[in-house]
Amino acid sequence: MMIDELPTPALLFERAPLEANLKAMADVLPGAKLRPHIKAHKCSELARRQVARGHETFCCATIREMEVMAASGLGEDLLLANEVVDARRLGVLSTGGARITVAVDSDDTVDAAAAGGVPEVLIDVNVGLPRCGCPPEDAGRLADRARRAGLEVRGVMGYEGHIVGLASREERESGCSESMEKLVAAHRDVGGDVISAGGTGTFDCNGWATESQAGSYALMDTAYAKLGLPFEQAVFVLATVVSVSATLAVAACGLESLGMDHGNPEVMGGKLWFCSDEHVTFAPSSPARVGDRIRIVPAHVDPTIAYHERAYLVEGETVVEEWPIDMRGWGPA
Amino acid sequence: MMIDELPTPALLFERAPLEANLKAMADVLPGAKLRPHIKAHKCSELARRQVARGHETFCCATIREMEVMAASGLGEDLLLANEVVDARRLGVLSTGGARITVAVDSDDTVDAAAAGGVPEVLIDVNVGLPRCGCPPEDAGRLADRARRAGLEVRGVMGYEGHIVGLASREERESGCSESMEKLVAAHRDVGGDVISAGGTGTFDCNGWATESQAGSYALMDTAYAKLGLPFEQAVFVLATVVSVSATLAVAACGLESLGMDHGNPEVMGGKLWFCSDEHVTFAPSSPARVGDRIRIVPAHVDPTIAYHERAYLVEGETVVEEWPIDMRGWGPA
Repeated sequence: MMIDELPTPALLFERAPLEANLKAMADVLPGAKLRPHIKAHKCSELARRQVARGHETFCCATIREMEVMAASGLGEDLLLANEVVDARRLGVLSTGGARITVAVDSDDTVDAAAAGGVPEVLIDVNVGLPRCGCPPEDAGRLADRARRAGLEVRGVMGYEGHIVGLASREERESGCSESMEKLVAAHRDVGGDVISAGGTGTFDCNGWATESQAGSYALMDTAYAKLGLPFEQAVFVLATVVSVSATLAVAACGLESLGMDHGNPEVMGGKLWFCSDEHVTFAPSSPARVGDRIRIVPAHVDPTIAYHERAYLVEGETVVEEWPIDMRGWGPA
Repeated sequence: MMIDELPTPALLFERAPLEANLKAMADVLPGAKLRPHIKAHKCSELARRQVARGHETFCCATIREMEVMAASGLGEDLLLANEVVDARRLGVLSTGGARITVAVDSDDTVDAAAAGGVPEVLIDVNVGLPRCGCPPEDAGRLADRARRAGLEVRGVMGYEGHIVGLASREERESGCSESMEKLVAAHRDVGGDVISAGGTGTFDCNGWATESQAGSYALMDTAYAKLGLPFEQAVFVLATVVSVSATLAVAACGLESLGMDHGNPEVMGGKLWFCSDEHVTFAPSSPARVGDRIRIVPAHVDPTIAYHERAYLVEGETVVEEWPIDMRGWGPA
């Protein structure tokens, strides 16, 4: 099938930059040095491409993602890098043969992991981002509690999410250093083999972590593009121009196919005016015609992907594969 | 089932305000005076409740929505209030017995409607929003072209989308008047029975339209709540607190369950700090505990709904029904 035959809006993964991104990352962080974050693409077929590049350990953000990964035969070593209050669905996955680890940052979540039948945990440490994670000085105590509850404590995790998007590499490096000092200190109290941290923005400047949780690198977005990283844009939303006036054109694709929290997307071949539910209004760089197909570059990859049922892997004008976005949603799969 | 047993994040529709909203609207715009816009909820079960209130004509934003409405037996009179370049899927619906009308605003989209086998059209007129719609003075010519192509021209539509969200009722009224003058002028050239326009923000001050395309009124959001309309908040995202620190709490629900283009949502019982992919960080009004369940009020209903597979109709603490959000996505259903 050719791209022109696709119903739009359509989520496109461009094969060449996607493969280049996977290779560039595997060159710097081979094998288990990278634990790719699944939330950035929610696509088991893309995860298989990451396995083909040597990564067999994965991070997830939701229990649904963990379930679909396990059901897809990708349960070699799955980390739910979030806390959960009810871990029973994770316990079921463990019983089913997947290796399941969950983040814990409180007595409650330690107890939930134990009660739910999850065998292994990481102590999630707050390294500066005001979100989850225990205070670094509490990590050792939590690890003790977890071990007393019969849990295997594999180590620590801490996400320097307040750092990964900083435009200046120097600031990312110094911020990362400051955050990782906290994580390493916590790790001394916790023990275990794992120091899990980092994202695409710090993939090559976090020398403290034993593994990076980068995910966006595979597909990229306009926010990460500003950082000058060695990854290319590989995801686009294809839309059809349905209306043209003297100065503007309108394509049928909008707020329900684009994550908007990082601001407006970019229109290739035009300047965006605004997005509506199922429209983007833009000023085309050259005269547009009804029926033209344009590409839109998402500002934030994760919440963009979550709107789409499937992605089309494309090369030139050809659709080479259709990949379900099979890890959306939250309840039991 | 009780609300506390739901896996979260969960989309909740609160029965009492939903029914009150449906009644309040039907009192002002009974029967075919309202053509409810489906894009605001994408849920055939909710559409059935609108039918029960006397509305049997509907607006859609996508062909998928049209297909699911028709397949749900709700094809009495369906308007695709957007232009399409390929109308063949709509022609199939028409052949299948649904009454199908599509908006057209150019020679190309008139020709597409005819080629696709859509029997009826509305001439979409630009009434001030820089988006779709022909110039008012071109409407008569397009109607002639459509009739020559064998299409039944039912009238005009024009969306005063630049007006519906204005905070001041006076400004909404005067802006609406200005827009509708253009639409009425175009209608004189076009003919037909239908003048379709309006949204929730102008539902009771658009005296020119023969039918209103309001949709958000059923569920509402924080943006529309600022307008002092007689509709109550009826949609919430339920989330579970997974982490608590001295000043902040974190609930597991985020950018992938909330439309963010209108800005941050509101947290009931707290003040939102920021949203991440699967987290909201907030300052709780009273001490929070891990396991607490909170409600989040979306800033924009349409793109929030589009993230969810299902909604739970709730009353008090009881889940009374589960409704699939069955009109998401774009390709053939």
